[in-house]
Amino acid sequence: MSRLNETHDASLRSWVDSANADGADFPIQNLPFGVFRRRGTNESWRGGVAIGDRVLDLGAAQAAGVFSGDAAAAAVQAAKPLLNEFMSMGPRYWSALRLALSRALRDGAAAQARLAACLLPQADAEFSVPARIGDYTDMYASIYHATNIGRLFRPDNPLLPNFQWVPIGYHGRASSIGVSGQQFHRPHGQIMPPGAQAPVFEPCRRLDYELEIGIWVGVGNAQGESIALDEVDAHVFGLALFNDWSARDIQSWEYQPLGPFLSKNFASTISPWIVTMEALEPYRVAWDRPKDHPQPLAYLESDDNRARGGVDMRIESWIETARMRAAGAAPVRLSHSTFAHSYWSVGQMVAHHTGGGCNLNPGDLLASGTQSGPDPSEAAALIEITAGGKNPVDLGNGESRTFLEDGDAVILRGWCERSGYARIGFGECRGVVLPART
Amino acid sequence: MSRLNETHDASLRSWVDSANADGADFPIQNLPFGVFRRRGTNESWRGGVAIGDRVLDLGAAQAAGVFSGDAAAAAVQAAKPLLNEFMSMGPRYWSALRLALSRALRDGAAAQARLAACLLPQADAEFSVPARIGDYTDMYASIYHATNIGRLFRPDNPLLPNFQWVPIGYHGRASSIGVSGQQFHRPHGQIMPPGAQAPVFEPCRRLDYELEIGIWVGVGNAQGESIALDEVDAHVFGLALFNDWSARDIQSWEYQPLGPFLSKNFASTISPWIVTMEALEPYRVAWDRPKDHPQPLAYLESDDNRARGGVDMRIESWIETARMRAAGAAPVRLSHSTFAHSYWSVGQMVAHHTGGGCNLNPGDLLASGTQSGPDPSEAAALIEITAGGKNPVDLGNGESRTFLEDGDAVILRGWCERSGYARIGFGECRGVVLPART
Repeated sequence: MSRLNETHDASLRSWVDSANADGADFPIQNLPFGVFRRRGTNESWRGGVAIGDRVLDLGAAQAAGVFSGDAAAAAVQAAKPLLNEFMSMGPRYWSALRLALSRALRDGAAAQARLAACLLPQADAEFSVPARIGDYTDMYASIYHATNIGRLFRPDNPLLPNFQWVPIGYHGRASSIGVSGQQFHRPHGQIMPPGAQAPVFEPCRRLDYELEIGIWVGVGNAQGESIALDEVDAHVFGLALFNDWSARDIQSWEYQPLGPFLSKNFASTISPWIVTMEALEPYRVAWDRPKDHPQPLAYLESDDNRARGGVDMRIESWIETARMRAAGAAPVRLSHSTFAHSYWSVGQMVAHHTGGGCNLNPGDLLASGTQSGPDPSEAAALIEITAGGKNPVDLGNGESRTFLEDGDAVILRGWCERSGYARIGFGECRGVVLPART
Repeated sequence: MSRLNETHDASLRSWVDSANADGADFPIQNLPFGVFRRRGTNESWRGGVAIGDRVLDLGAAQAAGVFSGDAAAAAVQAAKPLLNEFMSMGPRYWSALRLALSRALRDGAAAQARLAACLLPQADAEFSVPARIGDYTDMYASIYHATNIGRLFRPDNPLLPNFQWVPIGYHGRASSIGVSGQQFHRPHGQIMPPGAQAPVFEPCRRLDYELEIGIWVGVGNAQGESIALDEVDAHVFGLALFNDWSARDIQSWEYQPLGPFLSKNFASTISPWIVTMEALEPYRVAWDRPKDHPQPLAYLESDDNRARGGVDMRIESWIETARMRAAGAAPVRLSHSTFAHSYWSVGQMVAHHTGGGCNLNPGDLLASGTQSGPDPSEAAALIEITAGGKNPVDLGNGESRTFLEDGDAVILRGWCERSGYARIGFGECRGVVLPART
């Protein structure tokens, strides 16, 4: 049974003109969910769907009588200031609302007149983190990242023996996750200067970004029960872009034996739109592993995961320095890769996470770990791009970077494309480094 | 200015007789907060205060008109099914309600007639986790535990160089924290058997407990701001007992390089009552460190912390096997120590946690890490008590243990006592190991 349906049809066009533009992130084949309000107001946050350069207000659309049945029940929840309840409803409701939206936003839809009044330009909106994140988990699913960074932290032992067997993950800080546009102060922390006898407590000197994929949990699992690999699709709501800002000098001093703490918990940034797994279906690709690598244990292995465990989500990181902004110059791309390179699939990450009985809840967030690819141009963090700060990257405007400087913005972008299907995008995940507090 | 007030007066007696019994955990000098309902009902959860063997229903007491002013405002929040709002109000309100409770529950109080109807035997109550835990952080604040366990995981390198400088911590799983009485299935996970070429995914064979102190955050801090060491008292609401169940065989295979994951995230157990920092004031003791150890960096150092950073909270762990339960035999004590041995104080943990700008929220939970003391009898986890499973502990009834077996209950107990002051207790933190799911 194909998992593709009429919403994936590349020939569909929307009566919202901007959705039909070449290269638009939000054509009618996408329909990602988020939470917004009119910028600069104290209006209530509310759920919406991106279509072209607009956001459709789901509560207003529901009030206009556009939805019925399962779609109406779903719209009531998806219109709320937090999407947790909508996420908990499961694929039947997610899919019903997506189908109703696709039909209502198509060229010639009878609902056009009623829905046109429910649209707001995205440029006039501000966004919030779209769900209450009960728990956030950071995975470590790229073997290229693990090897690159392992070489810097442990030159004689870059890839630890467990990496090819265990989808490595650790719990991270939920409270400091902000939405795209987040500005945060360069963090203080303990740093052990080379050759020093004692650490200092000072602002981070080696501030970095990490380009990751955010994985939003929809339907959870009860404590003590696990989610089998082939059941994961019924539990994951969608994907987003995620920047796991990292203070490398703090990390290298603090991380043993229990993992990162202050080096990561000051801020993380997520993109506002959640692209549903249903929208991503055409871009699923085979998950595979070289034959001379260890093959997965039984609970991480299935035909379906082999056939479509990967997601060919193209990902890019860009930098915009304060000087570029002042000059009106375009950001400069730092890296580009694809999530299809991931050593572990989304399904394997979730199956492992719950394999011991850990309960996931609707709105929980997993991040994929830094998604570096095999080529140096695919390294998704400055510590890899600059070989630990040894090889500055030339930004082409007279500036160079080893690590981030105050005023730097990092912008993550992502999209999917495949012959015969529409291109769908993730929008931006942007964050700006402010000077350390004094 | 003394931080002691009339509520600490050891001569106070309550009209609730059981509060005056020798060795009672909940005399009128304690007054810890929790959330309860009548056992076996579907009543709403609601806030209460322990007094002797009773729980006082705060909503009923408020409705009876016992409180006024700040205490009434506090009682409205403390009566709710989650204490987050009450916790967020700060010391002025916490203290006002505690004083009003002390006065209303004293021998001869005019409120006695009205309050007597607001009491429920604790034996007829069930409890829940008293706040929504936004984020949970596990610290690692005992140098004795760090050294003991470090010796097992890294014989040549037991105490890492950062330990004496950094209050080590890592983020843990909030969703699987349950209240005393929690039963959980022995977790599955990846285990690398000695000498094997590949791991197996099987039930944990080396299941352990960890006796820790739970630290409930009251007033939070804004992202980007930190809580200075001497301000921590205004932010911490109170303490509880915490069991950080740990799967040692899973932990040793998975924990590098990013810390524990499935080895800890299947379950943790907290005691139902939160003993406020105000109630603990008489038992605060000097925080000190041997002169030949590194002394704290400036942000972790203050006269006040030196004078009263420690808490002489006596802590014990006990085991009750299924055979003991069937025989009606008493549990057997495994260890006893005091939180005063902690290498880092509560203030230092919170000041460090927020030192890089990480925001804490009301109801967030820190745990102290396993609080082992210097003597072998003070080792607060089986992996230390049995030297990694090499020396089984004799339970005196023909049974012995290296690690926990199915049916074992672990019971944590804690109390404070000091000449001239009342003894106050924490109640129990009890959890039971169920067989692994098949």
